[in-house]
Amino acid sequence: MRQFVVLGHDAPTTPDFSLNDLPGSAGRIDVLCRCINSAFFLSHDVRENVRLFLVHQDEVCIRLEGSDLRHLNPDERTTASLLRKALEAGQDLVGAMEVESTPGIYVSKKSFGEILGGIDESSTVVELHEEGVPINELGVPENPFFVLSDHNDFTRDEEELLAEYRDERVKLSPEVLHADHSIIVAHNYLDTRGFRHY
Amino acid sequence: MRQFVVLGHDAPTTPDFSLNDLPGSAGRIDVLCRCINSAFFLSHDVRENVRLFLVHQDEVCIRLEGSDLRHLNPDERTTASLLRKALEAGQDLVGAMEVESTPGIYVSKKSFGEILGGIDESSTVVELHEEGVPINELGVPENPFFVLSDHNDFTRDEEELLAEYRDERVKLSPEVLHADHSIIVAHNYLDTRGFRHY
Repeated sequence: MRQFVVLGHDAPTTPDFSLNDLPGSAGRIDVLCRCINSAFFLSHDVRENVRLFLVHQDEVCIRLEGSDLRHLNPDERTTASLLRKALEAGQDLVGAMEVESTPGIYVSKKSFGEILGGIDESSTVVELHEEGVPINELGVPENPFFVLSDHNDFTRDEEELLAEYRDERVKLSPEVLHADHSIIVAHNYLDTRGFRHY
Repeated sequence: MRQFVVLGHDAPTTPDFSLNDLPGSAGRIDVLCRCINSAFFLSHDVRENVRLFLVHQDEVCIRLEGSDLRHLNPDERTTASLLRKALEAGQDLVGAMEVESTPGIYVSKKSFGEILGGIDESSTVVELHEEGVPINELGVPENPFFVLSDHNDFTRDEEELLAEYRDERVKLSPEVLHADHSIIVAHNYLDTRGFRHY
């Protein structure tokens, strides 16, 4: 299993945004849509062994399960529409409740800390950060759990939380990459090195 | 210099499409928008040493130059709006004419064959194809010119043309990747292996 969590610092927590202005009034939800695309799509196929958590302002958590996903298309607009449905379904949740808004997409009020706290012990928690060590020094973790930030840096609080849980802090490239591009490179690292023979 | 050409088999050749339906009535122009994002964006930066050709149904060619690009945002909708401006500017072109529709974006009626015919001799023409050899057998070409298809396979005519020009035929992954994801992986291959020390 490959897992990713992306922190959406500006991402909306309610569904009242326009699909015609994803980078503006919708709080850069376009970034999260591209992360979904990167996490799940292969050509004419979906990666079933992937789980993605999107954390919207540490208030709402949307979890996507590759094995159950339906109605997902590669473009940003239809993906944003699925996220809007999730935010709508999640409006009245309290405590640890979670609901499935469309097949394979679940919404809850979990915080970043609660997600980190729920990570299975078999996972290797990998922070992706431009100041980390090159990923090829990491080897090939069996159950990687990658933690990424959106177009903003991790906050100091997030860094402190992460420091409690992370096993590795790596960079994927000498360049500083967008979050969605990082997911592609992380997948490729695993695709070509360990999960399958290449 | 890194160059890419992407064949958009269904991509519109005229600007009369809606920004609200990029994957539908706009002929999957969303695929080309994501290729632009992959080719040029770094975090808070643009890759200046990149040139991208988009071939719309072998009738219209849109050329993007990283060193001159302005007004480019990562999201699909504003990128599609720049492509629409290019298609509008290109409507009355004939012969070898080319115009700049917005900074760094040029439009002409060049065909795929004309683009291949114009490739500089210092370039290594690399076809990206799932049946190619693994890219790590290629080494690190100095001036790679990658040729990709969109969500459709190359046609037989395109394959025959390509066979005349290509130096290598490689695959990037044991998985079959979307065109925009392939561009990310190709960049990463070069970023980590040759153009800069890593």
